[in-house]
Amino acid sequence: MTEQPLAAAESEPHGVYAAALTPVDDDLAPDCARLVRHCRWLLDNGCNGLAVLGTTGEANSFSVDERLQILDALGEAGFTGAELIPGTGCCALPDSVRLTRRAIEIGAAGVLMLPPFYIKNVSDDGLFASYAEIIERVGDDRLRVYLYHFPQMSATPLSHGLIERLLKAYPLTVAGIKDSSGDLDNMTAMARNFPALRVFSGTERFLAPMLKAGGVGCISAGANVLSTPTGRLYDQWRGETDEAEIDRMQEEVTRLRLMLEGFPMIAAMKAMVARHTGDDAWANVRPPLVKLAPGVVSNLLKTVDQAGLVLP
Amino acid sequence: MTEQPLAAAESEPHGVYAAALTPVDDDLAPDCARLVRHCRWLLDNGCNGLAVLGTTGEANSFSVDERLQILDALGEAGFTGAELIPGTGCCALPDSVRLTRRAIEIGAAGVLMLPPFYIKNVSDDGLFASYAEIIERVGDDRLRVYLYHFPQMSATPLSHGLIERLLKAYPLTVAGIKDSSGDLDNMTAMARNFPALRVFSGTERFLAPMLKAGGVGCISAGANVLSTPTGRLYDQWRGETDEAEIDRMQEEVTRLRLMLEGFPMIAAMKAMVARHTGDDAWANVRPPLVKLAPGVVSNLLKTVDQAGLVLP
Repeated sequence: MTEQPLAAAESEPHGVYAAALTPVDDDLAPDCARLVRHCRWLLDNGCNGLAVLGTTGEANSFSVDERLQILDALGEAGFTGAELIPGTGCCALPDSVRLTRRAIEIGAAGVLMLPPFYIKNVSDDGLFASYAEIIERVGDDRLRVYLYHFPQMSATPLSHGLIERLLKAYPLTVAGIKDSSGDLDNMTAMARNFPALRVFSGTERFLAPMLKAGGVGCISAGANVLSTPTGRLYDQWRGETDEAEIDRMQEEVTRLRLMLEGFPMIAAMKAMVARHTGDDAWANVRPPLVKLAPGVVSNLLKTVDQAGLVLP
Repeated sequence: MTEQPLAAAESEPHGVYAAALTPVDDDLAPDCARLVRHCRWLLDNGCNGLAVLGTTGEANSFSVDERLQILDALGEAGFTGAELIPGTGCCALPDSVRLTRRAIEIGAAGVLMLPPFYIKNVSDDGLFASYAEIIERVGDDRLRVYLYHFPQMSATPLSHGLIERLLKAYPLTVAGIKDSSGDLDNMTAMARNFPALRVFSGTERFLAPMLKAGGVGCISAGANVLSTPTGRLYDQWRGETDEAEIDRMQEEVTRLRLMLEGFPMIAAMKAMVARHTGDDAWANVRPPLVKLAPGVVSNLLKTVDQAGLVLP
């Protein structure tokens, strides 16, 4: 078992973060009351924190005003500090600045920041300038940026050279990274190359391997429905050194996560929460996503039941 | 020479549209005064219209409020009707609705609408729902949507099946498409398959071939600096049936356009306008783009001069 210098800092983000789903009402408006209940349920059932308004939260499908409204609702509900890492990275510089400022105001421990993602094949100079402009314009010592590397979605990868430059320029502000590439080698290399960077795996499938490699946890879509087994795995790793048991628990988390692969993840997890809460509106998604067809929902729920996944 | 049923409708958008550059000041704020001057210069020198706030206009690097401010400035400057096709397609439904409404209010003949482009591998059902929701929420008979197919940038292609569904559902509203794929076969197939659709090539390189194939013009980045030869080519096609002369003029436009390929297009064209206007601020770009390094500017301007490209 490797040392845990980063995860040992209890006030800093660590452990299992749910990339929380964002419920929308029948008019497709964000539903803050349902979101607050969902977030509380996640923290009560295995999650250490909430990465709201990320990819799974359909963040970019909401306007900046809607995202500010969501942040305010979470702040008013009392979520704060290490519990909260909202996504604030947009294509437009002023949007990222506004959202990041608000995240700090409500007390979030950090922000998860996508690079601007419309223009493709941009240079590291351009990405550095993007992050630097946001950090300078926000101009707040409390800011902690978690970079968001998700090349399959942003089509804008964050290179190790870029990370190195950002860490050198903003050693206190650039606090960590979420790697959703699915490339375990890249995640472990980042943890090795940048000891000061808090590396979160973008999937619970690599939670144990990343913890062993010096990572601090995972920020994952799946945690919306797998918070209990994933939280238990993290607790096991923190409390014990029984490698075999940790590996067994990771296998179980991985098995459940892979079960969901055949379904559109966001719509599928919303359908699962809809059944669990008895609240049909939970199944709503914003375009360009679509609700699962009834036949697919039946198939999904049967698959979930057969796999023995019971929501808490 | 094929017939020109669509282009003959003079009040409808046709011909050479510049995907106009958006100047920003030294603080990176949009500079509406410079933009208005640039737009007037384009219309005075070969362009039939302005496709402002597209990819070349770095639209997605500006907040919705900044884009509304730009639209208002263009409206106040008197640009209207077929002169104007602003880009209004965003990732977030409410943003696209707000921008589209404003474009109609200032009298724009149509809007150029990207699909939501963050979430990848979305279904045609999801894309249909995206466009349909915007059209329904805008709810204005004056709305004319030009779909924007640019898979290299949006990573969200618009299939012929999707176009067919949209045309069937909104035959008066879905007016045309800009195809920036660079795939001439796809453009000609669209013009053939959808006679009611006004097809614009996304590059001046295919202006003549597309006019011959039933297209109505081009909406191109290059027109920011190639408005004169491109406009002359279009005029030649409208006035004459001398195929050889049209082909020769197309070859000249293509030669000039290819000359620019080795440079980052947006920054390079801004550098060219900076020299032409004697206004250094024109060279500014918003991150994630970067200004050309001085050595690259020298190389660019030498290349431009050697090619015999003189801005009007």
